[in-house]
Amino acid sequence: MRASYHEALSAVSADLVRMTDLVQESVRTATRALLDADLQAAEQVISGDATLDALHDDLESRCFSLLARQAPVAGELRTLVAALRMVGDLARMGDLAAHVAKIARMRYPKKAVPDTMEGNFRRMAELAETMVALAGRTLAERNVLDAERMADHDEEVDELRALQFRRLLDDSWPHGVEAAVDCALLGRYYERIADHAVLLGSRVIYIVTGLHPEGENWTIA
Amino acid sequence: MRASYHEALSAVSADLVRMTDLVQESVRTATRALLDADLQAAEQVISGDATLDALHDDLESRCFSLLARQAPVAGELRTLVAALRMVGDLARMGDLAAHVAKIARMRYPKKAVPDTMEGNFRRMAELAETMVALAGRTLAERNVLDAERMADHDEEVDELRALQFRRLLDDSWPHGVEAAVDCALLGRYYERIADHAVLLGSRVIYIVTGLHPEGENWTIA
Repeated sequence: MRASYHEALSAVSADLVRMTDLVQESVRTATRALLDADLQAAEQVISGDATLDALHDDLESRCFSLLARQAPVAGELRTLVAALRMVGDLARMGDLAAHVAKIARMRYPKKAVPDTMEGNFRRMAELAETMVALAGRTLAERNVLDAERMADHDEEVDELRALQFRRLLDDSWPHGVEAAVDCALLGRYYERIADHAVLLGSRVIYIVTGLHPEGENWTIA
Repeated sequence: MRASYHEALSAVSADLVRMTDLVQESVRTATRALLDADLQAAEQVISGDATLDALHDDLESRCFSLLARQAPVAGELRTLVAALRMVGDLARMGDLAAHVAKIARMRYPKKAVPDTMEGNFRRMAELAETMVALAGRTLAERNVLDAERMADHDEEVDELRALQFRRLLDDSWPHGVEAAVDCALLGRYYERIADHAVLLGSRVIYIVTGLHPEGENWTIA
């Protein structure tokens, strides 16, 4: 009984890592859809979101069933509670990548992001993707230090978003209302992907140490 | 031991209801800040968010401690797992209300929402607030039917948001880029508050029935 229980717990952890890989791919493909006006990439992310949702439902019900059928203690309980939250974060990140892809699809064959903003969004997307990768590796290796590095990336994401606002609210913004609204929402989506990556990191720290990291970056609900 | 355990569980439920009341008040006050350009209301919501965050941390640690120190079964386990998610939803709704208030404060003494959009936002905010109230009552009374009514309100919120986009992306939009960006983000924040209210409702159904409601409205992560 305990052996099969531990196997089931390991399978949950392995699938969380796999789901994180899929989310990373989804973010990367959504960015290609957005910055290269690649319609096929956009469709791939949008239809792929159903796969992530199905993984979410499957993993969630397995966690519930492990919580209900067993009486997990200490570390195991922490792992299951954290897994339940991670699976929610990951599904949400998939939704956000799909939101990015939908804006790309809506503006196709035009690009949603004006040329002058492309560098900013490319860097922001790269950071978000790196943060997802970092969360996945941290989860796979239970490496606390990697999770802490995440905060630096998150700070740069916030700076890039502030810069976006300065540009698009500047009187000299030449790209009109539609591009400004697209950029404001896209910036929000990438920022939220990054926030959820930070949260994933904090859940790993919780599994490993049993402590909730202090500081604002770690308490985003 | 069991008696004090049940008392602790009841106290968690009562505090969730109280937190829902505070979130509802926060949404209402943020809307007043926004639509009446009321700076004092805006400051109240922004500083009040710390109270909600503190309640979140307190409730969360009590849930974890109940999960860890006891071996909750069936209904109790469901209640605790759902409570952990609800407290996350509620903290997030508080953050979103604070985002609304920050936009109101940033544009003060001007109104962030142009006159022509005020009716739309007033209705959207009213729906969001009603949905939070519904979630709170559903939670207090464990009334499944109320939670199901929520879906209708959520649909109207989505329609209002679609209408916002049609107006602000129309060539005849006369209010400029800043107002369009503000409206796009404000619409997003209220929509997310409504989504989290739907989730709160679905968590109550889960506590009462042990089943996850079907349908897209219930699977938002």
